[in-house]
This record gives sequence, C-alpha cells and structure tokens, in this order.
Amino acid sequence: MSILLVSTSRDPKQWAASLKEKNDALDIQIYPDVDRPEDVEFAISWKHPEGLYQEYPNLKVIASMGAGVNHILKDEQLPKYVKVTRIVDDQLTKDMSQFVLLQCLAVSRNLFKHLNDQSSKSWNTKPYQTPEKTSVGIMGFGVLGQAAGKVLKSNGFDVIGYANSSKTVDGIEVYGSDQQDEFLKNTQILVCLLPVTSETKGVLNLRLFEKLKQDAYLINVARGEHLVEEDLIRAIDQGALRGASLDVFQQEPLPESHPFWSHENIQITPHIASMTDPESVANQLLENYRRMKNGESLMNEVNVDKGY
Amino acid sequence: MSILLVSTSRDPKQWAASLKEKNDALDIQIYPDVDRPEDVEFAISWKHPEGLYQEYPNLKVIASMGAGVNHILKDEQLPKYVKVTRIVDDQLTKDMSQFVLLQCLAVSRNLFKHLNDQSSKSWNTKPYQTPEKTSVGIMGFGVLGQAAGKVLKSNGFDVIGYANSSKTVDGIEVYGSDQQDEFLKNTQILVCLLPVTSETKGVLNLRLFEKLKQDAYLINVARGEHLVEEDLIRAIDQGALRGASLDVFQQEPLPESHPFWSHENIQITPHIASMTDPESVANQLLENYRRMKNGESLMNEVNVDKGY
Repeated sequence: MSILLVSTSRDPKQWAASLKEKNDALDIQIYPDVDRPEDVEFAISWKHPEGLYQEYPNLKVIASMGAGVNHILKDEQLPKYVKVTRIVDDQLTKDMSQFVLLQCLAVSRNLFKHLNDQSSKSWNTKPYQTPEKTSVGIMGFGVLGQAAGKVLKSNGFDVIGYANSSKTVDGIEVYGSDQQDEFLKNTQILVCLLPVTSETKGVLNLRLFEKLKQDAYLINVARGEHLVEEDLIRAIDQGALRGASLDVFQQEPLPESHPFWSHENIQITPHIASMTDPESVANQLLENYRRMKNGESLMNEVNVDKGY
Repeated sequence: MSILLVSTSRDPKQWAASLKEKNDALDIQIYPDVDRPEDVEFAISWKHPEGLYQEYPNLKVIASMGAGVNHILKDEQLPKYVKVTRIVDDQLTKDMSQFVLLQCLAVSRNLFKHLNDQSSKSWNTKPYQTPEKTSVGIMGFGVLGQAAGKVLKSNGFDVIGYANSSKTVDGIEVYGSDQQDEFLKNTQILVCLLPVTSETKGVLNLRLFEKLKQDAYLINVARGEHLVEEDLIRAIDQGALRGASLDVFQQEPLPESHPFWSHENIQITPHIASMTDPESVANQLLENYRRMKNGESLMNEVNVDKGY
C-alpha cells in the first residue's frame, strides 16, 4: 500500500520529507516517478494533470494539499468512487485572515496610492479613512470568511457578511442570497472568500461591481474563476471600483502579457494569501490515511456534488 | 483677547472653522493676516516660521496641532515664559497603532517585495513569516508606543519595547536604556516612536542598525530627525537592513532630488501615519484656552526642558 504525491506547482519532495518525518515506514511514490500505480490507495494532490487518476485502479482517497479542492473536482475524468478531502488548518485560516486584514488596512490608509505617488516622486497627503468608517463585505462566510470577519472587526472595521442564508455570527450581520443587492449597497471593500462552484464562477462581474458603495475596492483571495477579468478593468475604468488586490487568477502564474500586471490600480500577489506548511498538516493527512485503511469516516471530506 | 492660528503646511482655515463651530464668539486671527498681535494670548501652531513668536508680547500658550512639539521647541527665539501643549487624542493614538500594524503585516507578508515583483512582471511565491515568528521592537514606549505594542501583540506579533527604564507593560517586556544591545539583538522589525530630544536625534544610525537581528526592517513613524539618512542607505546596501518604511523625513515634503524616492527597498508615505482631525481636537484646545484665561493648570503641557 502506498501514498502518491502529485504536484505540478509545489515541491512534492518537501511534502514527502514532512510525512516521512512522522512515519519513516511509509511507502511514498512521487509523480511522475511511479512504478507501482496499483499499490496507490491514497493520493496527496495539487493541480494534477487532467485524467491522471484513471491510471490508479485502487485509488480510494485524493487529499488536496490546500483548502481548495476545485483543482481536483474540475477533472471530468475523476474516478466516481474516489473520496476527496481538503485541508482545514488553523494556521491556514489565521494566515488568510491576516492577509485580508493587511489588504483592508492598506486600502483604508491609501498605502497603494502612496506607493504609486512614490514612483512619481509626489508628496500627496490624502486624508485617510478610519477602519470604523470603512465597511468591509465578506462574500462567502464559511470557516475562512468568519475568521477574517472576526479579525477585521476586532481591528475596528465595520464588517458584514454574505452567505446562502441570513444569520448573525459573532455579532456580524450576514446577508442571505436573497439580499445580495443590499449587501453590495453597504459594502465598500468587497472581500471574496467563496468556494468555487458552478454558481460562484464569474460572480465578480461588472453588474455586481456597479452595485457596490462609492469608492469601492475588490480583494479576491478565493479563486481566479470567481472573477470575470475583463469586467474588472472595465469597472475600474468606469469608476465603479477604485482598484483591486488580487491574489488569485484564471491562469497561474499570471501570463506575462496579462494587462493586470501593469494596471496602476491593481495590486498583484502570487497566490500567497495562505500557503500550506507541509509540516503543520502532515498529521492531518496521515490521520486520514489511517482512517481510510481502517474503513473509518474521513475528516474534512468534501461533498463532491456541492463542490465544498 | 484672541487666538492665533499658524500653520505653513496644514490648512489653518479648516482649524478656524472647527473652533468657530464650537464657539462662534471666538476672536481668531490667522497668520499671516494678523492686525492685532498684542491681543494674542493663545496660539495654535504647526511648523511656524522661526522667531515668529517674538512679535506677540502677550502670548502665554502655544498649542501644537499634533502630538509632536519639536517644531515649536526647536525655535531658539521662543519666548521663555510661554507654555507649550501637545495634542493627546485617542483617535490619533489609534490611527498610529493601525498604521504600524499595517506596516508590520506588510513586512511579514512580503507585500512590498510582491509589489516590486509586479513592476517587473515576476511571479515569485516567496514563503512568508507569520507574525508569531516576527519580533517587533518598539523604541519609545510612551502613550503611542504602548498602544502600538498592544495592537501588534493582539494580532500575534512577538513584541518587545525599549524605554528609559526596564519594566513590563501589558505583558510586553520593555528593555531599559542600559539594555539597548539586547533589545536590538532581539528585534527584527524596529519601530521608532521616540520623542525628539537632544539624545534621540540621529539615534537611528548605522551602528544601531548593525546590532539588529538578521533580515531586519526599519519603520520610522516618529520624526525625521531620528534618522541619519545616509546611514539608512548604507545599512541597506551592506545588508544590515532589508528595507525601511518611512513616514517622516529631515525635510518635508521630501525634496524631489532625494535618493529615498527611487530606492526600491524604501517605502515612502507623506507623514500620514496619524493626522489630527481638527474637529476631534477642538474641544481639547478650547478647554486649554479656558484654563489659560482662568489661570488654571493646562492639560497635556510639555516639559520644555525635557522636550516631551
């Protein structure tokens, strides 16, 4: 019985080392150097080549290396009987919240504007907006959205949320999907933390941006598929948005020819809002491996039909 | 009896309006349109021309428009009998703390590096350092330093302080002036929140930078006089510092010819870490005006000899 490690953009050897450190007896095969595909029952995976898992007749579980699973589920040749798990890691959640806080503070304190001014050697003392007067709307109010909301609120921001159904979480008002217009009308900084599903793909589009508060700003830390990229540039040009911070893109790495790179009101980070630390999640992966072998129910299993 | 408003870099009319709103009967003269200097007993001042106050024979109090008073005290022709007050404003303190938090998060999450990468269209996923693993050393542990320390600590940073004498404040270890080397050895991000005195001028120099932890970073939000500007560039070139965020400068606005503007590891903001809102401090100024008229002791009076 063996564990398969597949990753085209993260270093699988680092993952193998972290797992081996916990249990030196593990049999680990690293893609593409696989000589016994029939031994593999458990795969740890990040952005695998489409159709790959057809070649593993005894595969039972695919564990995502991160919180997202769309990179697994979007493969139309995924064997139907395979279970999929995601990482739920307190550190990952914390890192995401802190990154969102950083971005919201940067927006309210005009940091990006000041750095642009620096490049033209201009001294412009634009007055700032305090967090208390800055409304942040979080789309997607699951584990990550709630944690970010809590951190933003404790640092003074005026936070609201958006989810399938309306509720109040930790004193934060969450609008339901039937109140989207109202949610947007009250949002100045829009933070996207939605999962990728057929309904949320392309949800960040011009029509939506036009419903936001004046002087609105977008922070996308979820997935590139949420954003209609042409619409973002149009929205900024039309003044519906003042700018955007993007950590995720339709295509990653972002192609050199992409217009986002040189847009002065778009801030780019290379998908680093929260990065799984293999060391900190090795136990969680190995626990699911143990459960699979014993036929027990898995932790953090994804509902493959819902997509999260 | 009249109030004098003097400011060469902030709009005095806005200050006059905020004061008038509280008390329409006030007699306010705005420099340089002063026709009755002998009527002035109370001045509200920001960066006045040197020697100016010699022309006001009945002046009793100069109130700084901000938390700093060095712009008043450095005038060698300041009448000896005049009392000087500073602004102590919760909002000012909060704003400063949030700005320091923003800068520390930006450093730990490599934000400035990513924005530099953007300008060269490079996708570099450098792993970040969590706040828990980032030690922030705050030089100057008065009202502003303590508030910043508290906010940084509540957001996970590993915070220490530096003051005249060692103590523990809100669970933060504060090193005394006899432990400077130890303080620096344990500091990765150095935040300067010192007052300007003859002892603190030029304290941020190459010798000090060389004692910091590896991969150190400077955040100066106090005053330009603290920094030996040539030493900063030398320290970055030598690798003693990875970079700096500067909000204050020896000369403001920073002259166009200054090398800081185009240094890729120096981030410039135009003295906006915390800006006094005239509306929010009008009551405090008028209360001191009342106290002066009644011969009562003033709030937030500065010890002119100590300089803070």
